[in-house]
Amino acid sequence: MVGLSPGTLVHIGKKPPGKVRITVIDYDEAHVIEKEVKTVDECFPFKNTPTVTWINIDGVHQADIVEKIGKCFDIHPLLLEDIMNTEQRPKIEDFGNYLFIVLKMIYPDAKGKEIESEQVSLIIHSNYVITFQERTGDVFDPIRERIRNGKGRIRKMGPDYLAYALIDAIVDSYFVISEKFGEQIGDIDEELVTDPTTATLRGIHKLKRELLFLRRSVWPIREIINVLEKAENPLIKKTTGIYLRDVYDHTIQIMDTIEIFRETLSEMVDAYLSSINNRMNEIMKVLTVIATIFIPLTFIASIYGMNFSWMPEIEWPEGYHIVLLFMLALAVLMLIYFKRKKWI
Amino acid sequence: MVGLSPGTLVHIGKKPPGKVRITVIDYDEAHVIEKEVKTVDECFPFKNTPTVTWINIDGVHQADIVEKIGKCFDIHPLLLEDIMNTEQRPKIEDFGNYLFIVLKMIYPDAKGKEIESEQVSLIIHSNYVITFQERTGDVFDPIRERIRNGKGRIRKMGPDYLAYALIDAIVDSYFVISEKFGEQIGDIDEELVTDPTTATLRGIHKLKRELLFLRRSVWPIREIINVLEKAENPLIKKTTGIYLRDVYDHTIQIMDTIEIFRETLSEMVDAYLSSINNRMNEIMKVLTVIATIFIPLTFIASIYGMNFSWMPEIEWPEGYHIVLLFMLALAVLMLIYFKRKKWI
Amino acid sequence: MVGLSPGTLVHIGKKPPGKVRITVIDYDEAHVIEKEVKTVDECFPFKNTPTVTWINIDGVHQADIVEKIGKCFDIHPLLLEDIMNTEQRPKIEDFGNYLFIVLKMIYPDAKGKEIESEQVSLIIHSNYVITFQERTGDVFDPIRERIRNGKGRIRKMGPDYLAYALIDAIVDSYFVISEKFGEQIGDIDEELVTDPTTATLRGIHKLKRELLFLRRSVWPIREIINVLEKAENPLIKKTTGIYLRDVYDHTIQIMDTIEIFRETLSEMVDAYLSSINNRMNEIMKVLTVIATIFIPLTFIASIYGMNFSWMPEIEWPEGYHIVLLFMLALAVLMLIYFKRKKWI
Amino acid sequence: MVGLSPGTLVHIGKKPPGKVRITVIDYDEAHVIEKEVKTVDECFPFKNTPTVTWINIDGVHQADIVEKIGKCFDIHPLLLEDIMNTEQRPKIEDFGNYLFIVLKMIYPDAKGKEIESEQVSLIIHSNYVITFQERTGDVFDPIRERIRNGKGRIRKMGPDYLAYALIDAIVDSYFVISEKFGEQIGDIDEELVTDPTTATLRGIHKLKRELLFLRRSVWPIREIINVLEKAENPLIKKTTGIYLRDVYDHTIQIMDTIEIFRETLSEMVDAYLSSINNRMNEIMKVLTVIATIFIPLTFIASIYGMNFSWMPEIEWPEGYHIVLLFMLALAVLMLIYFKRKKWI
Amino acid sequence: MVGLSPGTLVHIGKKPPGKVRITVIDYDEAHVIEKEVKTVDECFPFKNTPTVTWINIDGVHQADIVEKIGKCFDIHPLLLEDIMNTEQRPKIEDFGNYLFIVLKMIYPDAKGKEIESEQVSLIIHSNYVITFQERTGDVFDPIRERIRNGKGRIRKMGPDYLAYALIDAIVDSYFVISEKFGEQIGDIDEELVTDPTTATLRGIHKLKRELLFLRRSVWPIREIINVLEKAENPLIKKTTGIYLRDVYDHTIQIMDTIEIFRETLSEMVDAYLSSINNRMNEIMKVLTVIATIFIPLTFIASIYGMNFSWMPEIEWPEGYHIVLLFMLALAVLMLIYFKRKKWI
Repeated sequence: MVGLSPGTLVHIGKKPPGKVRITVIDYDEAHVIEKEVKTVDECFPFKNTPTVTWINIDGVHQADIVEKIGKCFDIHPLLLEDIMNTEQRPKIEDFGNYLFIVLKMIYPDAKGKEIESEQVSLIIHSNYVITFQERTGDVFDPIRERIRNGKGRIRKMGPDYLAYALIDAIVDSYFVISEKFGEQIGDIDEELVTDPTTATLRGIHKLKRELLFLRRSVWPIREIINVLEKAENPLIKKTTGIYLRDVYDHTIQIMDTIEIFRETLSEMVDAYLSSINNRMNEIMKVLTVIATIFIPLTFIASIYGMNFSWMPEIEWPEGYHIVLLFMLALAVLMLIYFKRKKWI
Repeated sequence: MVGLSPGTLVHIGKKPPGKVRITVIDYDEAHVIEKEVKTVDECFPFKNTPTVTWINIDGVHQADIVEKIGKCFDIHPLLLEDIMNTEQRPKIEDFGNYLFIVLKMIYPDAKGKEIESEQVSLIIHSNYVITFQERTGDVFDPIRERIRNGKGRIRKMGPDYLAYALIDAIVDSYFVISEKFGEQIGDIDEELVTDPTTATLRGIHKLKRELLFLRRSVWPIREIINVLEKAENPLIKKTTGIYLRDVYDHTIQIMDTIEIFRETLSEMVDAYLSSINNRMNEIMKVLTVIATIFIPLTFIASIYGMNFSWMPEIEWPEGYHIVLLFMLALAVLMLIYFKRKKWI
Repeated sequence: MVGLSPGTLVHIGKKPPGKVRITVIDYDEAHVIEKEVKTVDECFPFKNTPTVTWINIDGVHQADIVEKIGKCFDIHPLLLEDIMNTEQRPKIEDFGNYLFIVLKMIYPDAKGKEIESEQVSLIIHSNYVITFQERTGDVFDPIRERIRNGKGRIRKMGPDYLAYALIDAIVDSYFVISEKFGEQIGDIDEELVTDPTTATLRGIHKLKRELLFLRRSVWPIREIINVLEKAENPLIKKTTGIYLRDVYDHTIQIMDTIEIFRETLSEMVDAYLSSINNRMNEIMKVLTVIATIFIPLTFIASIYGMNFSWMPEIEWPEGYHIVLLFMLALAVLMLIYFKRKKWI
Repeated sequence: MVGLSPGTLVHIGKKPPGKVRITVIDYDEAHVIEKEVKTVDECFPFKNTPTVTWINIDGVHQADIVEKIGKCFDIHPLLLEDIMNTEQRPKIEDFGNYLFIVLKMIYPDAKGKEIESEQVSLIIHSNYVITFQERTGDVFDPIRERIRNGKGRIRKMGPDYLAYALIDAIVDSYFVISEKFGEQIGDIDEELVTDPTTATLRGIHKLKRELLFLRRSVWPIREIINVLEKAENPLIKKTTGIYLRDVYDHTIQIMDTIEIFRETLSEMVDAYLSSINNRMNEIMKVLTVIATIFIPLTFIASIYGMNFSWMPEIEWPEGYHIVLLFMLALAVLMLIYFKRKKWI
Repeated sequence: MVGLSPGTLVHIGKKPPGKVRITVIDYDEAHVIEKEVKTVDECFPFKNTPTVTWINIDGVHQADIVEKIGKCFDIHPLLLEDIMNTEQRPKIEDFGNYLFIVLKMIYPDAKGKEIESEQVSLIIHSNYVITFQERTGDVFDPIRERIRNGKGRIRKMGPDYLAYALIDAIVDSYFVISEKFGEQIGDIDEELVTDPTTATLRGIHKLKRELLFLRRSVWPIREIINVLEKAENPLIKKTTGIYLRDVYDHTIQIMDTIEIFRETLSEMVDAYLSSINNRMNEIMKVLTVIATIFIPLTFIASIYGMNFSWMPEIEWPEGYHIVLLFMLALAVLMLIYFKRKKWI
């Protein structure tokens, strides 16, 4: 990006395999048309129809396609740059006759171990919504289903409701992720009790970083919804406001969960350190107790190992056994003392 | 919730046993009617009477009942969704002709060890109040008693005063809980002095998490009351304002107590670590002192255990006893030295 | 409080011995009347006189007295509840024709070791001030003296100036307490250097908690004074404003001192831990050095304690002394080495 | 600076070698003139031309040159003082007919190990931009190239767009630096896993301090852009606003990265301490286990080294081997026990 | 202060030796009069002259002098109290026809080791400035010099510019102090690397406390300047505004430096603890290694010290040397192993 003229289209981020896929859904209360188009030009006719049109582009790594859409739908060049730079922060920008929203869609990867994130950009116009995603596959299928079936309100409402439904789907996906986090925290907590290792600490730090990432994805959504709700923008109808408020509540709920998770993880670091310390202390204590018992015994033995010519006990017939018994008694007494002191 | 059309009623939370129980109390200054109704329809006649009606629903896990009430009393579908989702944050929403409030009722469980929480949703209308609870059993009995007896102001005031009384009862119940916390913190503090174990640390962390939960339940009440007080809503009469202010003061008092508890718990973590450390140090010190006393003595004994052909002391008649005495003197001197240095 | 109708008068807090004591001081520029009254009724005549009247009630644990005053002077029932609940937070409430202020008076106990706190409630009316205290004995004597002597401005000014003087006396008493804290911190600091024990840590934690309490008593005074100053209340005259500003500055100064104390106490916890650690390390180091010196020496002795039939050194006439000298040399060398390494 | 009359020009900062270098680029849509001037006077003719003029001064350590420019272009003496003091914070000041901006340009040094920073001051006037740098060499070459080639919008726009381009170039350079930080953090993370030393900790602290410096350079840019955007200044055209918004987003992105780096470094300090501790514990554990195994064995040996006249085992022909075997068995048993306990 | 009528003049703070010294400088563009006056009365004639008069009082411990000045120049009694109480926080108060500012002047003591602070109070009137200092000697000499010489703007400007110059001189003196701090931090950092002791930790804590004090002296200056700048006070001319802005920038720069110092000191506490720990660990490691090498060797020696009648090795002619060599080999092997494991 450094040194380039602003508005130059360069893809930033991981390049997914395969080529860009464009689908169009056009609907009103009476009908639905759904098709996958081969070239960008095929979706231009939908631009000025009175029906609601949802154009979805999977893949933002081909500058020519993004540029063509930008030109046709009259999108500011800097926004096209933002769409292709997949390291944006979630944000909203109001261009008067259309709104531009960037969001992060987060989902577990195929194996369910790692978290994958994808940038979703929305253009909300008075009669169409354009969504840009990085890869094929998203959390919008239930919405498509609702449009097809005509269930719920969606077919009766405008593009602002569609946009709400899309944002809502993304926010809902955070709940799934936050449950995953809950499970992983549970796993680590068990590890902490049974067998804490350095890997456990690394695991806690990894989760903390991922939560930080999640928080940075969720936090700006509050502001986005605030802008949507309050802006006296003709694009957003009053009736959609209460739905947006609902999404807002959800983001706050997720933020709360994240905060609890972060607090829990901080406590787990403490618990880890304390547990490592405890285990080490236990070991050292037992070992030291063993040494402490045998050192005085060895001293007694070494006394009778001295070669003085006159040592009366040496000559006693039962001297040896008396000493052995004395040693045994001493060891037992020490053990009892240590036991009573709760040292072992 | 993921993928569902907004407004679809799904119960989220623990499903209590038994079925939904609906009670109605209808009163004005002159009379009181109180009855448990079998079906939802029985409470519809109270909707438009000039008297104050309090409809209480115990159990929000049956979608059909919630939906029926919603339809009759004209409640927005999204609110019904909120009522059935028992993981809401406390909040207030103003729908012009009615107010919607979500609160958390917290009480100790049957055994008095754990904390249970229940979501209470209030619909405040100009002539009725509807409350939704998760389970039978609540903190509202004294209010019912006051309505029956006609003691205090309650029978002379409108639904806004009833709503205030309900909120006040919930906030008061937090005082009970915070006393419980105080006792538990006292118990752990005693444990810390007498016999701190890993369980003590876990106990501290558990309390911290519960306080966090309590704080998240209390904190939004400030905002709720602010909205109630300031909103120039015809539903809330001026005279009720000063009572709301009183509840506001109580929530701040609880927040203060929570902060002190949290501070205290943080100090207890420090004290725990320091005490564990101290105990370990004490043990190690004593054991090391024992070893340190016997190692030089053993060295002396081992000297006279050497087999040199010419060792004059060996031949002395009193050599053995002199060495024993010397060892004793050395041990005593070391003990005195350690004692003076405060090492034992 | 739980379950009671709001406005029910219940005393919350420690019940002081003895009964309630009521004193009245009535003054204007020309005269002063001061008397202790037996019954509440005796102070009613002062209600509507144009002179300034200060009614002081020592003891808030008798509901009937508080209620009687409340009725006569037309005080809102909820305020009476607040007056009797001695666990209030400092606060101000504006009832139009009178102001209600709650403050905490803090002073060292008889022995000068502990801190005692008492709740003071003020009712400021256009021609009288009523103060409620928990116990006999307060920080207001210099004000009484000034009224009696007619020194300073007080006799020429109205009830707002009297209220200012009372608040100022309470804030000034915090300076005394904060000096006490300074001394106690100094004591603990000395303990830290000479002989830190677990009690030292407990002492630090106790001070921290007391500072927290002090801060919670001082902090809201800023807001109280802000309200007094800014409220365009006819009860507070412009000329009193600058005096209130002075009290405001004092509270900020106390807050500053508290912050420094808290910072210092935090550092003392660090210093405590570091010092405990250091001492332990010193002990372990010395003990380990002793062991480390004698273990090799014992090894040498044990070599010559072996019973091999052919050990040439054994037969040397001076073998024994050579070995002893060698051991001595080794011990001295080790000591020099440890000394140079600064291990002992 | 202390004691000098305000506006006295004194250079503060490192004095670079060589003398001051002044270059002028003058352009409009049709033409470009670019030249290096020998004396300050040569750039005066460009002052009132309708074309856009960019005067760049490399070196602010010669008071006479700065003063001459200041006089000709009518810059406030205090600003000249700010320009020569290279320890300014980034800031913006609006003088009505011109804007003054201070920024920090950050780049890796020649070896790529250290970070160098240079203060850049901008004067934005309605038909010229003056930039002051500390040394020759900057991040503006791509902009010069764009002006020469007439690529992009730059030649068609005014000095406000030029100023935007310069600020954008500086902000972009922070991305390069933040990547460098990412690499260094990666290096230290590897060191932490393989061989953490005190140098590692010093390295972490150094990075933390550098991040702090970077943050203080980036943070005020947000405010600068806010002022530029919002000020209804005729110097900044509406069309430039959206570009400034873009720069604003970039600074937030950098701030985010910095926060993550700081969080990561904090975790690395924890990980360092925990790893140092672990390593030490491992060593002590193994050593203690060795001692613990041999101390009881030595005790047994010392028993049979006693000189009692009557010790039956001594006389057994296989006594020696039995004892040796017993010792071996004991050692093995202890090892198994320690192994099972996971102590070794 | 406790119990005194407000406005009673009592000196609070260290009483400096010597008596109060009053100097007057009276100037306009054309002339300067400078003299030291014996009695307060001598400076009264300057009160109503159109020239700028700067009355400087060194010493605020004599109530009669402060009171006399207060009466003549019509200063509010509470301000006189503030002037004599040298434990004020920096603050500004606007009395309509004059401004009252309290500042802290900070300078290194005679030996350059400790930091001394002195309270400076300013009264800014439309044609005079009165400054109160605690002791003779200040940072204002360069200003006096500038007035005498007529250099710079000062002689052409009013009392507001003089006040600015005084504030600027005080803020500039903070730079000197912050450099001193930088040096002391450098010294401690070196100590940390070479020989960290408990004194080092105390040194760090002392610096932290001094920085806290400095911060509390600097922080309120921002607000003071904000008030000066924004107040539409006829006392402060528009032209002085930009100079005040400059001082504001300086205070922010100092705040920044303080923050960095505090961060650095926090890291130094970490580094101290880590270094103390490391050193201790090093010692313990070496000592334990020594013990661990000799314990097995001693065991071997004690085996051959057993008195079994049948021990074949004992009879071998070279048995002794074989065992010695075996011991040597074992010791060397252990050393190599420990070396390879990086334990020594």
